[in-house]
Amino acid sequence: MSEPIDVLFSTPTMSAAFSLEAHVRGMLAFEAALASAEASVGVIPREAALAIAASCRVELFDVAALYHEAARAGTPAIPLVRMLTVRVEGDAQKFVHWGATSQDAIDSALMLQMREGLDLLVDGLLGLCSACALHAEQHRGTLMAGRTLLQQALPITFGLKAARWLALATRQVGALHACRQHLAVQLGGAAGTLASLGDKGLRVVELLAETLQLAVPELPWHTERDRVAQIAATLGVVAGAMEKIAGDVALLAQTEVGEVAEGSAPGKGGSSAMPQKRNPVDATSAVASARLAIGMVPVIMAGMAQEHERAVGGWQAEWAAIPSLFRYTAGAVERVRDAVVGLQIDADRMSANLAITRGLIMSESLTMALATRLGRPEAYRIVQAACQQVIESDVELRQVALADTRINTVLSPEEIERSLDPASYLGSTDAFIDRALAAYRESESLQER
Amino acid sequence: MSEPIDVLFSTPTMSAAFSLEAHVRGMLAFEAALASAEASVGVIPREAALAIAASCRVELFDVAALYHEAARAGTPAIPLVRMLTVRVEGDAQKFVHWGATSQDAIDSALMLQMREGLDLLVDGLLGLCSACALHAEQHRGTLMAGRTLLQQALPITFGLKAARWLALATRQVGALHACRQHLAVQLGGAAGTLASLGDKGLRVVELLAETLQLAVPELPWHTERDRVAQIAATLGVVAGAMEKIAGDVALLAQTEVGEVAEGSAPGKGGSSAMPQKRNPVDATSAVASARLAIGMVPVIMAGMAQEHERAVGGWQAEWAAIPSLFRYTAGAVERVRDAVVGLQIDADRMSANLAITRGLIMSESLTMALATRLGRPEAYRIVQAACQQVIESDVELRQVALADTRINTVLSPEEIERSLDPASYLGSTDAFIDRALAAYRESESLQER
Amino acid sequence: MSEPIDVLFSTPTMSAAFSLEAHVRGMLAFEAALASAEASVGVIPREAALAIAASCRVELFDVAALYHEAARAGTPAIPLVRMLTVRVEGDAQKFVHWGATSQDAIDSALMLQMREGLDLLVDGLLGLCSACALHAEQHRGTLMAGRTLLQQALPITFGLKAARWLALATRQVGALHACRQHLAVQLGGAAGTLASLGDKGLRVVELLAETLQLAVPELPWHTERDRVAQIAATLGVVAGAMEKIAGDVALLAQTEVGEVAEGSAPGKGGSSAMPQKRNPVDATSAVASARLAIGMVPVIMAGMAQEHERAVGGWQAEWAAIPSLFRYTAGAVERVRDAVVGLQIDADRMSANLAITRGLIMSESLTMALATRLGRPEAYRIVQAACQQVIESDVELRQVALADTRINTVLSPEEIERSLDPASYLGSTDAFIDRALAAYRESESLQER
Amino acid sequence: MSEPIDVLFSTPTMSAAFSLEAHVRGMLAFEAALASAEASVGVIPREAALAIAASCRVELFDVAALYHEAARAGTPAIPLVRMLTVRVEGDAQKFVHWGATSQDAIDSALMLQMREGLDLLVDGLLGLCSACALHAEQHRGTLMAGRTLLQQALPITFGLKAARWLALATRQVGALHACRQHLAVQLGGAAGTLASLGDKGLRVVELLAETLQLAVPELPWHTERDRVAQIAATLGVVAGAMEKIAGDVALLAQTEVGEVAEGSAPGKGGSSAMPQKRNPVDATSAVASARLAIGMVPVIMAGMAQEHERAVGGWQAEWAAIPSLFRYTAGAVERVRDAVVGLQIDADRMSANLAITRGLIMSESLTMALATRLGRPEAYRIVQAACQQVIESDVELRQVALADTRINTVLSPEEIERSLDPASYLGSTDAFIDRALAAYRESESLQER
Repeated sequence: MSEPIDVLFSTPTMSAAFSLEAHVRGMLAFEAALASAEASVGVIPREAALAIAASCRVELFDVAALYHEAARAGTPAIPLVRMLTVRVEGDAQKFVHWGATSQDAIDSALMLQMREGLDLLVDGLLGLCSACALHAEQHRGTLMAGRTLLQQALPITFGLKAARWLALATRQVGALHACRQHLAVQLGGAAGTLASLGDKGLRVVELLAETLQLAVPELPWHTERDRVAQIAATLGVVAGAMEKIAGDVALLAQTEVGEVAEGSAPGKGGSSAMPQKRNPVDATSAVASARLAIGMVPVIMAGMAQEHERAVGGWQAEWAAIPSLFRYTAGAVERVRDAVVGLQIDADRMSANLAITRGLIMSESLTMALATRLGRPEAYRIVQAACQQVIESDVELRQVALADTRINTVLSPEEIERSLDPASYLGSTDAFIDRALAAYRESESLQER
Repeated sequence: MSEPIDVLFSTPTMSAAFSLEAHVRGMLAFEAALASAEASVGVIPREAALAIAASCRVELFDVAALYHEAARAGTPAIPLVRMLTVRVEGDAQKFVHWGATSQDAIDSALMLQMREGLDLLVDGLLGLCSACALHAEQHRGTLMAGRTLLQQALPITFGLKAARWLALATRQVGALHACRQHLAVQLGGAAGTLASLGDKGLRVVELLAETLQLAVPELPWHTERDRVAQIAATLGVVAGAMEKIAGDVALLAQTEVGEVAEGSAPGKGGSSAMPQKRNPVDATSAVASARLAIGMVPVIMAGMAQEHERAVGGWQAEWAAIPSLFRYTAGAVERVRDAVVGLQIDADRMSANLAITRGLIMSESLTMALATRLGRPEAYRIVQAACQQVIESDVELRQVALADTRINTVLSPEEIERSLDPASYLGSTDAFIDRALAAYRESESLQER
Repeated sequence: MSEPIDVLFSTPTMSAAFSLEAHVRGMLAFEAALASAEASVGVIPREAALAIAASCRVELFDVAALYHEAARAGTPAIPLVRMLTVRVEGDAQKFVHWGATSQDAIDSALMLQMREGLDLLVDGLLGLCSACALHAEQHRGTLMAGRTLLQQALPITFGLKAARWLALATRQVGALHACRQHLAVQLGGAAGTLASLGDKGLRVVELLAETLQLAVPELPWHTERDRVAQIAATLGVVAGAMEKIAGDVALLAQTEVGEVAEGSAPGKGGSSAMPQKRNPVDATSAVASARLAIGMVPVIMAGMAQEHERAVGGWQAEWAAIPSLFRYTAGAVERVRDAVVGLQIDADRMSANLAITRGLIMSESLTMALATRLGRPEAYRIVQAACQQVIESDVELRQVALADTRINTVLSPEEIERSLDPASYLGSTDAFIDRALAAYRESESLQER
Repeated sequence: MSEPIDVLFSTPTMSAAFSLEAHVRGMLAFEAALASAEASVGVIPREAALAIAASCRVELFDVAALYHEAARAGTPAIPLVRMLTVRVEGDAQKFVHWGATSQDAIDSALMLQMREGLDLLVDGLLGLCSACALHAEQHRGTLMAGRTLLQQALPITFGLKAARWLALATRQVGALHACRQHLAVQLGGAAGTLASLGDKGLRVVELLAETLQLAVPELPWHTERDRVAQIAATLGVVAGAMEKIAGDVALLAQTEVGEVAEGSAPGKGGSSAMPQKRNPVDATSAVASARLAIGMVPVIMAGMAQEHERAVGGWQAEWAAIPSLFRYTAGAVERVRDAVVGLQIDADRMSANLAITRGLIMSESLTMALATRLGRPEAYRIVQAACQQVIESDVELRQVALADTRINTVLSPEEIERSLDPASYLGSTDAFIDRALAAYRESESLQER
């Protein structure tokens, strides 16, 4: 039976991409491509390469048995090569895994899996971007409270918040794209010299890389793991980005805030005890997934300290950490996308919440209106006193401001009213939304090419 | 199919203890015990409790379907309660999960799983202790180089090294025992007040705890996770302890050191490329497992910041992090135990390595022999100069010392010889070994009681 | 100039306890106690011990110069011993640091610092406990909404919330107390054999431990760091506990919730832009400090994998990680204590917030009232439908319930009213508060002894 | 007094770049540039901007007092603005910090510090690259044992090892360069709308960015921290890379390996107890620094989950985590550079170590020589048997091979001899070294432009 993470904190596609079967498939792709490359340069016979390739199909292998043996051998490549050799018929047997070491097969397979994993994450993020872009456009002018340190600060619009999410997600698409440069083939032989390929090593690497559509590294990177760690680090950042959005959703969905709710579905978000509950379960799962993902990053970074030409532990830890990291990150992306796609936005509640401070949220606006004439420090002091009056009494800032001689001698009633109108104090909100949308569209068009 | 970690970085028993099935079994044990406790105090009918208990058998449930539904519901307890209610016949249906909330079932089940997990870890560690104790006794006098910053420092014995491993492992047994105090039942109802049990809440908690053999907490701990985090932290320390021992094994097994080798077995520790290889695969897997385990700890600690009466993510992350932590720690313990149990010790090589510095490893001993008469600073300077001579030439420190007038005027030839004999410069080695063995035996006898 | 962490994320007393000066003071205490112990058993002359002790005063040392030299030497103990030797006059010079290695001085000093650090943390936590206990008593019956996944769930009282904080903090006091058992002296000499003390090693360890009031370990623990890691792990849990409380404060202080506010003080919690702001700055600093603290824990755990008899990096990392961990944890404790001590509680707002769901928060109560007659599943369905009606219309659950025939045929109007009264649905709240207070008082009395 | 990390695990230049003073300097640069930008577009008077700029000199501020006040205020920008306003004379006072929020100043200052920090790291890495390149060229043909899982595997050359370090370090230079794209100015005002700048917000951002030479972001990124996290992640990878190289140095310097030693200097690498010791102190400090650096990364990633428009803790934690991360990473880079620059290489010892397995290290070579005729599997079996004979007896593989009829009927004595000659089994070693050197030179020339 699969692990809980696969249903709660991952996605089916990502779990498949990082299943044991997928890893074996990747190693077999490596073995087939290696034989083909070696045949091309005359290191092994062409027929051997064909025969090897013919056996490199994952359906022919007992994956569970292979991994059982791997535990004893210390690596899954040893039983794989053994099983493949048995299966290949005749003389071709002699040329299986020619010139390669276990790590060549394992790392190259990992790279193939990570390539698929990156694509899946980009797909998920683009879905999220698309939903964010829709909200950004539709709610461009939907006023709501901006909140700093969880205190109402200034008015913003929900469109701006969505645009910030959009820009964040768009940058993650870019970052994941950039990760592809790190997808390099691994072929070095036992100690990274390609000794057994004589002077044909580099040419074999190039052909192998071409077949697998992976980059050619300057040299083998068995114990120089920055490529893997950079990808891992980027996924950690993606996970952190997802937690930011999920956190906002959960905070906005609070009973006392009530500005958004996750979309409902049968069996979703209820409570076993409380019939009225509608829990932000997508946001919750996303937060959990993101934290689990980030937990893998330092394991991989600390694992970079790999001994000489093959590691004692640091590399092997990647075998669990990398799949977990991709799965958890995928879970975070999917759950945030689901939350944002189905998000129900209550513009009336947003508007109502803007009013609960009786105008205090407009204090900076009033300050700036005064500041052009009194300077910021003096204006700040006057408005702070006015705010104090609002807090201590039951009145609106509007009333206090209109009555305060330090204010009404500087600003006309109309100016005071305007300075207290949220809609007139949005600054560059529109321009920022446009910029986020433009960046997203550019990224999308790059994607399509 | 199970995940790679189950074969490479866990043990079958621990994987079983933290399978989805085991979690469902735990939740069912909770539901049965809850019903029974409630029947005892008259909250629900006795027959209902019996009927509920009769259905609380994991074989009756489709665990995969349950978890599939859990992903949508946000918690496995909701589908469990739904499925259990369907299965319970007649009037008893009405009393399923009475007064409890999802988290009560999930946390109590987790505690039952952790209890089993702690026992499994203790078993593994005691096996390791037993092997360490054997080595400590058998190699009490087997001389080898002590090494600081990977440089030969002073002679020790392999028995002392094994005794230090033993003391370390013994303390972990104690630490895991101490963790049992944190195994408390969870029952608080939806907001931790046990509101729906009226004035019988506390009594139900006590009876429930008694049945499940878990402690009664002062109050429900839905969002106060120090119990879980303390256990997690202790497992992190156990993992770190395992990595220390595994690291020593790998370092001692280096080709150039060659003082130990892991026991061999068919299919174990070979290389796909190099016929001569005998890799320290148990140590390697242990290191990988330990690092993966430690990676979970900050996820759980950071997850302690749980919101109000139920968390948005921090708690849910435990559902993957705790099982992973137990599995990886078990993998580390088992692999270290295997490495130490089968360890092949080459006392001749240890002795030979002691000689490779031509006596430099005895420099402190010579220094101290001189120091009683010259003081430590002066003695240090004289011996440092002698060492420099040894390094620059091809001679032994013995020869230099016998010829050096600053030395031979203070010490007789016999005194010089004695000061350069490793076996005569072991200080409290024997006493330390005895103390480690005594502590182990005490811990073992505590265990048996 | 001191680092930002000292003013923002630490406390002056903890920063002092983990200053470089404090570390030098600790090493000097070790050297003095060592000489004294050795004199007692006749290893060095009594006069030498007195002369050494006379020079072991931190004021006599240039701490900055010492650490400058330490960077080159690789350890602060080497320049310390050099400087101390210079300062000690006459023959006593010969006996400075007799039989010890650098790590003996450094680790023993660390233990002395950690002992002080643990005391400081306990002091801070007891201050927090005291404030929590006061709130628990004073607000025993102050009704407020319990919130799960940030949704209103059931009524609780603020006293219960404070009692949960209290129980959490009280357990941390206990955990820190338990840490004292790990405070052991370090004395092993260069390779952990105490070779240069002949057969008097153990006796010297005992006397040294007695003077420094540290425990006698079974054997030296230069590279078995579980003692240090266990303490570190406990601090990580304390930090996590602090973040839980700080998080609750920040969430309750939200503009839209407004149930608490941090105490105000001149210059505290304002905004450079917004005159009306009153930010939860203590909670904010506590969260930051807690996260920084937790970040140190895996560094220390992963650093446990120390090579042979002295580590290459894992130990040295402790020199920065342990002080940082204590400082950040102290910062978290102090800031949470400040927040809770000064907390302004708005019982009216709590009450008002309880009403905003128009009775939905009482849905479980109504369900349970029905359930005794209809069974939980049927009751759940009926109340869920009623809740839906409340959500879709503008009415109160009370009105819907009184009008719903499936409800009013089972419950009398009085029963319905009672089931919807928050004050009558608090279950074991009072008992739980009592239990938390009792546990605190017991812990406090243990403290006083 | 500065913290231990500054002398042991950082560099003076990096500590200066991330001192409190440097942060204040950065905030002042922001305030001056902001005023200038605002004056350019007519938001504030030109004279005011000049007056403000005149006061934006760090020497005019009491940095310690400022941070003391910051602890209470919750942010250093509030006291800074207050102090700056006091200092600016006359009407200009009114326009200090116009339109900005505290976070704008703090984040922009952080970006300026990170820019300097990145440059310092690149400098350090280029020094390391240069030393690696020299070793790669000079030791292109210096034979040594390649080691996998700490077991001798195949011959390599020290030049190849240095080339792998070089390629690793060169890629880090590239990664740090790529980080510069993330250095964006922060200006959003209190809620990220630039409300108080009316329609001139974007233009002010552009001018501000130009002056500070930072990028213009799509929109303010107060709570979208991927830029910061990506830089942090890259530093984590750099730190991991440094630990890899430091680890290799320490392993090669082991007494039993003895192939390299760190350069000696007075007061460097000795022991307080053992006169003969020459410890790899640079490698040791580098490892410690690297681990401390990596510990900061998850703190920053997990801190990305920032609430709404300003965070409660996640952002503030960066104030300590980012400086620590830069300092520790710098320490790691510098110490590795020092170790590699001064590295003493013992080619004779490398050669001698190659011989200690009596030819077993050439087993793959012999296998491949046979494999071209017998196929890899059969050849592997034959050579494995031969190896077993070598292990069990005292003879050389050469003798066994010459005598073994399964071998000597296939290969001539000359072929056997050649197959056992390390120098003839280096494969693409030369080509790989060339490729690493070429990549470095390209990176270097990019740097110079």
